[in-house]
Amino acid sequence: MDKYKAICLDLDGTVYRGTEPISEAVSFIGNMQQNGIDPYFITNNSSMTRVQLREKLASFGIIADSDRIMTSAIAAAKYCKENYSGASVMMIGEKGLEEALASEGIAITATNPDVVIMGIDRSITYAKLADACLALRGGAHFIATNSDKAFPTERGLVPGNGSFVTLMESATGVLPLFVGKPEPHMLEFIQVENGFRKEEMVMIGDNYDTDIQAGIRFGIDTIHVAGGVTSPKEVLLKSQQPTYSYQTLLDWII
Amino acid sequence: MDKYKAICLDLDGTVYRGTEPISEAVSFIGNMQQNGIDPYFITNNSSMTRVQLREKLASFGIIADSDRIMTSAIAAAKYCKENYSGASVMMIGEKGLEEALASEGIAITATNPDVVIMGIDRSITYAKLADACLALRGGAHFIATNSDKAFPTERGLVPGNGSFVTLMESATGVLPLFVGKPEPHMLEFIQVENGFRKEEMVMIGDNYDTDIQAGIRFGIDTIHVAGGVTSPKEVLLKSQQPTYSYQTLLDWII
Repeated sequence: MDKYKAICLDLDGTVYRGTEPISEAVSFIGNMQQNGIDPYFITNNSSMTRVQLREKLASFGIIADSDRIMTSAIAAAKYCKENYSGASVMMIGEKGLEEALASEGIAITATNPDVVIMGIDRSITYAKLADACLALRGGAHFIATNSDKAFPTERGLVPGNGSFVTLMESATGVLPLFVGKPEPHMLEFIQVENGFRKEEMVMIGDNYDTDIQAGIRFGIDTIHVAGGVTSPKEVLLKSQQPTYSYQTLLDWII
Repeated sequence: MDKYKAICLDLDGTVYRGTEPISEAVSFIGNMQQNGIDPYFITNNSSMTRVQLREKLASFGIIADSDRIMTSAIAAAKYCKENYSGASVMMIGEKGLEEALASEGIAITATNPDVVIMGIDRSITYAKLADACLALRGGAHFIATNSDKAFPTERGLVPGNGSFVTLMESATGVLPLFVGKPEPHMLEFIQVENGFRKEEMVMIGDNYDTDIQAGIRFGIDTIHVAGGVTSPKEVLLKSQQPTYSYQTLLDWII
């Protein structure tokens, strides 16, 4: 693992499961940091801010710098700034997206936006959806943080941002640009901002269709870890295999 | 037109446009009623009650008996009662659906329903969508009032029930049974409850893909009228033609 300077770790399913830490991942990260390597944390979760995620990781005993945390909300804001400089944005989303837009200095508007950015919003209303629908039909660009159709809660799987995006596509005929995994944008921002070569980067995660695919599409090494969304058996059936597969992250060190 | 005992008229786009009556349709209905023929009114709108629709028609000078009004909400309630007798229902919808379920004596529940019935709900919340998602993933049957992806308002097209159903399909993988047009359920309930023969029925509307298709699928005569969603030119391109096509409903009488 010495060849890697950017070790990119998925969060939910890889470092923790909901509110429970995955102990092998916590040890792995601690070992790595003792050897002077600080990982990056890459999540499709657009609802939480960097500070909230840092505090969640801290509650599991993981020390993470805010600038090592990349969310689909941060990537959406960066993508918007790069591609639609000076654009006004209508936002559907929670605190993580709101803060990401603010930190890129992007103006949020409720009327006539240039861009609609859509992330999960558990305070969604019909009026917000109607406003976004009218804006998209009026020609606004459409960026979506992530395409996850559902996400797990203690009650079971509930609708994710990808399902709300499907609603909007259905009502408008407009397809969004997704920035979350499996798209490679988050990895690309980390590469470009830090000057890494692709050979120096590795993407680690439990979900083949998002984590591993993001790494493969970006053209970097990938590591699948068991215990999450995709079982090792399911991974073996895929035409493109991850670079490595482990039962737990501690197997990589040994 | 003497051969028809059940003249079934679409409402929005055929009898009125939003808050404006279509004068030829108003005259047509008045002439018909003077000749002793009372039409049926068939709408995919699940949000309004029979009384609300009767009052709206009355404001345009059209006298309609409540039992001549068939909505996708009424049909959903009837379909549910016929197919899932005694079932408890989780409802997403507005007053029209709530009243339709009550008038069929169907119990509404917030937990562990046998059936989820989904109509447009402009007071939708994430919690309602999550509850329905969990119920469907838990095995509840799925009935949707109508599949309209969007509907017109004075501000433009806004998301319709069909788009919310797409969200739910995406989050659960469960496909609903639609009762609204172009499905023939509403026409079938009118036939069965009144003992009509199919030769005695005609479906009249402006929208080929809902109104005319519902009539064709049910196997009755159809009349397309211009001035609404589908232009006469677009109708000519369809492989299955309506029985008759008119510029306005008054052309039929002359």
